[in-house]
Amino acid sequence: MRNCLLQTYFLGASMYSERHSNSSEIRSLMAEPDYFDDNPELIKPKKLLNPVKASRSHQELHRELLMNQKRGVGSENKPELQRVLEYRRREQLIRQRKDEEEAQKMKSPFEVELLKRQQRLEELEREQERDGEEQENAPEFVKVKENLRRTSTCSTEKKAGYCQFSVAKHIINSDDVFNQENLYFLTQTERYEVAVKRAVHLRLKMKELGWADNGPEMQVANRVLGGNVAFSVHNGVFILTITELGTDAQIAKWVPLAQDYQIIGTYAQTELGHGTYLRGLETTASFDTSSQDFILNTPEPSSIKWWPGDLGRSANHAVVLAQLYTQGMCQGMHAFIVQIRSLVDHSALPGVTIGDIGPKMAFEHVDNGYLMLQNVHIPRENMLSRYSEVTSDGSYIKQGSNRINYISMVFTRVRIISVEIMPALSKACVIAIRYSVVRRQSKLKPGEMEAKILDYQTQQQKLLPQLATTFAFHFMASSLETFCNQVKVQIKTEGDVLLLPELHALSAGLKALISEACSAGVEVCRRACGGHGYSMLSGLPSLYTRVVASCTYEGENTVMQLQTARFLMKCLTRVDCGQPLAQSVSYLSEPITLHCSAKEKSDFLKPFVYVESYKQRACRLIKDAGIKLQSLLQSGVEQYVAWNSTSVQLAKAAVAHCHYVVVKNFVETMEGLKFEPEIHQVIKMLCDLYALTGILDNAGDFLYDGFMTGKQLDLVTACQLDLLAVVRKNAVSITDAFDYPDEQLNSAIGNYDGYAYQRLFQWAQKAPTNAKVNLAYEKYLKPRFQLAQSKL
Amino acid sequence: MRNCLLQTYFLGASMYSERHSNSSEIRSLMAEPDYFDDNPELIKPKKLLNPVKASRSHQELHRELLMNQKRGVGSENKPELQRVLEYRRREQLIRQRKDEEEAQKMKSPFEVELLKRQQRLEELEREQERDGEEQENAPEFVKVKENLRRTSTCSTEKKAGYCQFSVAKHIINSDDVFNQENLYFLTQTERYEVAVKRAVHLRLKMKELGWADNGPEMQVANRVLGGNVAFSVHNGVFILTITELGTDAQIAKWVPLAQDYQIIGTYAQTELGHGTYLRGLETTASFDTSSQDFILNTPEPSSIKWWPGDLGRSANHAVVLAQLYTQGMCQGMHAFIVQIRSLVDHSALPGVTIGDIGPKMAFEHVDNGYLMLQNVHIPRENMLSRYSEVTSDGSYIKQGSNRINYISMVFTRVRIISVEIMPALSKACVIAIRYSVVRRQSKLKPGEMEAKILDYQTQQQKLLPQLATTFAFHFMASSLETFCNQVKVQIKTEGDVLLLPELHALSAGLKALISEACSAGVEVCRRACGGHGYSMLSGLPSLYTRVVASCTYEGENTVMQLQTARFLMKCLTRVDCGQPLAQSVSYLSEPITLHCSAKEKSDFLKPFVYVESYKQRACRLIKDAGIKLQSLLQSGVEQYVAWNSTSVQLAKAAVAHCHYVVVKNFVETMEGLKFEPEIHQVIKMLCDLYALTGILDNAGDFLYDGFMTGKQLDLVTACQLDLLAVVRKNAVSITDAFDYPDEQLNSAIGNYDGYAYQRLFQWAQKAPTNAKVNLAYEKYLKPRFQLAQSKL
Repeated sequence: MRNCLLQTYFLGASMYSERHSNSSEIRSLMAEPDYFDDNPELIKPKKLLNPVKASRSHQELHRELLMNQKRGVGSENKPELQRVLEYRRREQLIRQRKDEEEAQKMKSPFEVELLKRQQRLEELEREQERDGEEQENAPEFVKVKENLRRTSTCSTEKKAGYCQFSVAKHIINSDDVFNQENLYFLTQTERYEVAVKRAVHLRLKMKELGWADNGPEMQVANRVLGGNVAFSVHNGVFILTITELGTDAQIAKWVPLAQDYQIIGTYAQTELGHGTYLRGLETTASFDTSSQDFILNTPEPSSIKWWPGDLGRSANHAVVLAQLYTQGMCQGMHAFIVQIRSLVDHSALPGVTIGDIGPKMAFEHVDNGYLMLQNVHIPRENMLSRYSEVTSDGSYIKQGSNRINYISMVFTRVRIISVEIMPALSKACVIAIRYSVVRRQSKLKPGEMEAKILDYQTQQQKLLPQLATTFAFHFMASSLETFCNQVKVQIKTEGDVLLLPELHALSAGLKALISEACSAGVEVCRRACGGHGYSMLSGLPSLYTRVVASCTYEGENTVMQLQTARFLMKCLTRVDCGQPLAQSVSYLSEPITLHCSAKEKSDFLKPFVYVESYKQRACRLIKDAGIKLQSLLQSGVEQYVAWNSTSVQLAKAAVAHCHYVVVKNFVETMEGLKFEPEIHQVIKMLCDLYALTGILDNAGDFLYDGFMTGKQLDLVTACQLDLLAVVRKNAVSITDAFDYPDEQLNSAIGNYDGYAYQRLFQWAQKAPTNAKVNLAYEKYLKPRFQLAQSKL
Repeated sequence: MRNCLLQTYFLGASMYSERHSNSSEIRSLMAEPDYFDDNPELIKPKKLLNPVKASRSHQELHRELLMNQKRGVGSENKPELQRVLEYRRREQLIRQRKDEEEAQKMKSPFEVELLKRQQRLEELEREQERDGEEQENAPEFVKVKENLRRTSTCSTEKKAGYCQFSVAKHIINSDDVFNQENLYFLTQTERYEVAVKRAVHLRLKMKELGWADNGPEMQVANRVLGGNVAFSVHNGVFILTITELGTDAQIAKWVPLAQDYQIIGTYAQTELGHGTYLRGLETTASFDTSSQDFILNTPEPSSIKWWPGDLGRSANHAVVLAQLYTQGMCQGMHAFIVQIRSLVDHSALPGVTIGDIGPKMAFEHVDNGYLMLQNVHIPRENMLSRYSEVTSDGSYIKQGSNRINYISMVFTRVRIISVEIMPALSKACVIAIRYSVVRRQSKLKPGEMEAKILDYQTQQQKLLPQLATTFAFHFMASSLETFCNQVKVQIKTEGDVLLLPELHALSAGLKALISEACSAGVEVCRRACGGHGYSMLSGLPSLYTRVVASCTYEGENTVMQLQTARFLMKCLTRVDCGQPLAQSVSYLSEPITLHCSAKEKSDFLKPFVYVESYKQRACRLIKDAGIKLQSLLQSGVEQYVAWNSTSVQLAKAAVAHCHYVVVKNFVETMEGLKFEPEIHQVIKMLCDLYALTGILDNAGDFLYDGFMTGKQLDLVTACQLDLLAVVRKNAVSITDAFDYPDEQLNSAIGNYDGYAYQRLFQWAQKAPTNAKVNLAYEKYLKPRFQLAQSKL
């Protein structure tokens, strides 16, 4: 048990800090370039080594850890840790010598090094699997917290049987079908084929091993595969919609077939000309009493269904969202199950035109498609009828609220924040921060070697606030999910949708805030890696091109912000009438402070100071927008003109509201950790950094009405710069705590072992272009180059 | 001549406004859906039309123009225009009827419509080619200005034989090799092959037609091909470097071969571990007196040359940047011509390891490569020796300044701003603004049909400042090029590099500011197009993924900002000593205003008010950074620590300086147009919008020291929102004035004719995935779907 804990410490702190403990041995084993530790200011001829032979980054990592040790990020005063370190040192030395011998037989020293580290990692993993499987099922943040415990500055040995590598991970990683190594080299079609292969293989594996659909093993599998599996819309939305909106009979008929991949379904809502505004959808489903069928049509080019995932090449069924017409009346948007392709030969059914919409910014593995329907008949029982139905005479019967149709969208929005949006930012942070202690550029101090780029204040200013943001959103997503579950229960058990407006407003605004900030943050991380961040092999470009889609899907962000703003304006009216407010907006009826109370730098490390600042900002912006709206209305302007003329300010107010909610939630979660002082210290630091960075980024809002003065803002600046220097010391350990396996990061520059250059070189050599015959040379260049032969 | 002018008006104002003049005829010719112009609030069953038949966006465009007419954006009071309009109307009516008849034979009504518009455009182009070839050679902005003259609100007929379509464009567009239609469907290898094919074909064409290398025809060709041609590094940097740094004999030997593509060269500077910090390059070139050769080595993994374009698969030569060693001394970075591949069979020469670095975020057509050199010998005369040489006994002789080696980098930086960076933003504006008058979403006013998204204030707030930014940078790039040419002449004729530090500081900071703002702006435009902006077929994703590279290449932006900051700090010292300052920074010694003088909204439309504001902001931020730096130094902190601890503020100061330079330059250019009141009016509007948006985006800086008050900021907000509404009226015409041909935009949603949905549908159907056999279905899905056959 003790062994396991300490091994986890190492694993948690990654090879970057592991160097720390066995540095001298490693040096004695390695070819050390002769310029090492000499006066590096003097440029002198270098021994002309084999370029692949000298492993300088190895030594650089070592230095990083020596420095950490000096700073006190290490194992001092931890006698038990020391003992195990010594034990491990001996073990590793023996293993390394053995590896060293074997290395002679290998192709290149890079490969030797890579193999060594891989073996060591595998061994650690195996040991942990034995001891700690039961911890696998812990939710994301618990794991981060557990890891942090072991990796933060003040980490001491604590009892915990924690481990994050499970049988499931092992099964996935050892299965060739799930190998993602060549991902960046595949074409759109190849990626689709691989994704389908994986999806079907995974489904069979699930059945074979008895893994539940949303069980912990599947969560691990999805995490490891990073979403590069087909049928996410089928599994996530098609089945969900039937479950939410279908009758028991409909669920019994369709869901088992769908779960067994005997049918694949898509969710066809978005149209070529219609997205977020659902009432504008043009697809029609008209009930025909004579045939007892619904007749579906996409009557205009703009009503062709467009974008649904799994539709282009895979699905044989679709949940189609359409305007229901019966007895000459339109009853609004309803959901219908429509078969679109033959079960026999997969051809499109009569009246159905179907295909792939072509290449996108990312999601190459998803066959987003288009769907045209021309007089397609479906039986009456294919309308999803839990909340409304059409009887055989064409009567329309409604049960329950109109809002019901929108519930699954709200739930989906909450889910994607933690499943799709946040992980992108945390992965980007891991890659960029690791790379930033490997990469060196320019001399910070004359006479020293080139400095690690993470030691530059400008690099810290880019990356470390992103790290803090990741935590802010981790906590927020977690609280939002709790709230969401509460609403779900209320609806299911009491049929009560009272909390839905608040959840809708909160989830809409937070989805916009978080997707925006995560996209921007990933891109900051990517650019902070310079040229290598532009290579697909870094893993960063695809993190961006994928996550940025979330600013648009599941509700375009500006529309989302204005939804939140509409709720906020309603709340203002309630304040004026003295009515009670929902919890997340109750601050609107509280008195506000006119001036920020901070007098010195340290005051800005007091959470109540910055929480109050965000609160005041949100209050003011919401009320100002409300006042503008009201005064426009009172001046006789029509409602829609008034709303549109205020919309820029309304959107801004919604952002400020959500920003306040996130900061407040960060502080509350952080304060809940007070009984765990080591964790608390690290989280507090990140919380301060998140809050203060936000103040600086929006300085105008805080200065506008004299709430803060320029002098106070100077204190915030100074405080934030101090924090950067402190967080920098812990940065690698904190990112390690996310505990992403290398397979999932799939990044040549962000691997656990720090071999960025070597791996880039190794991976690039595998690029298919390097293996193919160069047709362009043969056809176009050869004849020209031959002309030069006589001249050179 | 008059005809030509007015046809240009139409062309300039695009089909969007052409509708305006012949609306009733078109309506009479078109199938009009029965719901049109009825009360659209009432949702009622629609006639089930063939989805591809009804052409609603056609009518929407028409409405856009009717509205423009009501607003006065039209042809009133233009009798000559009226006459020609009538003439054209008749002509078009006849042509349309003829087209209509032919349409019956065609496959789909979309195609008929598309063909019609295409024919009309082609006819216009042909006529213009006849009349206006001589105008083709005018620089980019002159063209925009000429177009604006014809398209702005206040445009009246003026004499000008202006035309932008030339023989060159025709030659390119009519040549199948240059067809870019399927660009988005090609793999990396295919795009490379096509790019090489085009480059060689274009070179032969040039010789055949006698086009000069940087002549106007080649500029047109490059513009039309949008950079999708191989050998940009060969043509742009390899040849340039030899020309700049080579002796006359070297130029005579290498340049003709290179220009004739008998050799292809690359410029190998960047290394795996070294980018912007050139002194850190590790590649060595050691002179060996016995063999009279330089021996080149990349001694470490981190010194492998990485990224050079045209290297991966094409080049047989390289200009290699390496540390020169001779007589045991390092003489710093020099350039050497190295043959890397055989002229006979294209294989790597002994000691050379070479390949493609694999997939990137964009630039699929460029074979960026890696290059390892192990004891590669080259003759002594292959060192580029205009400014320094090594004699046969190994003596090193330097001629001229050290700065000379960096000149071509400064020039390149200036060039890419106008050639690579700005066009991306202007194209994105054209696409997004056109799409925003086609796309409708939600009802702005109850009872009307869904509103065009450009009529939403939030959409205007996103797009229109980008349009203004494009103009700000157009003018800035133009002034910077003038300055650059001045410096070039000074160096060539007088050997005087006195102005170089200012040019370096200005070009570095502006490159950072402009690439940052253009990347952000393109992405704003892309996201503002919702889901369709995420489709590659919109043309927007690749605009972003390509332009964002410019934040990194030719000098990473933060490094660039700090270069500018270093210059600014030196200037502060000169101020303290009472020494004169370079022109662009002379404001640092002028007195500053303590409070903004604006009292009412209209004051913020006075350029001196906002120029003064930007000046004050830049001054303060620069001086504050200087004070911090000084006080750290005075407190005994080491220089490098002080610099690093101030670097976030220094970078910010550099940005503020450049921002001021851009605003000031915009105002000066705008004021130079006063004698052309129609142009002036439009440009003034955009200038105001650019300046005021910048104030709002950086409100904190202006409020910080009480220079502006919250009330003044409210005036800026109000003023900016007013401007949005005004610019919105002219938005389509202004973007049309950029005059990008459809082939170059290559956007399904941004075409001149406004058929966004139809073209998306048409293009998607061409996606290769829709033609290929679905292997994934055959292999993985078929067996599963068969299970469902008995159950459904």
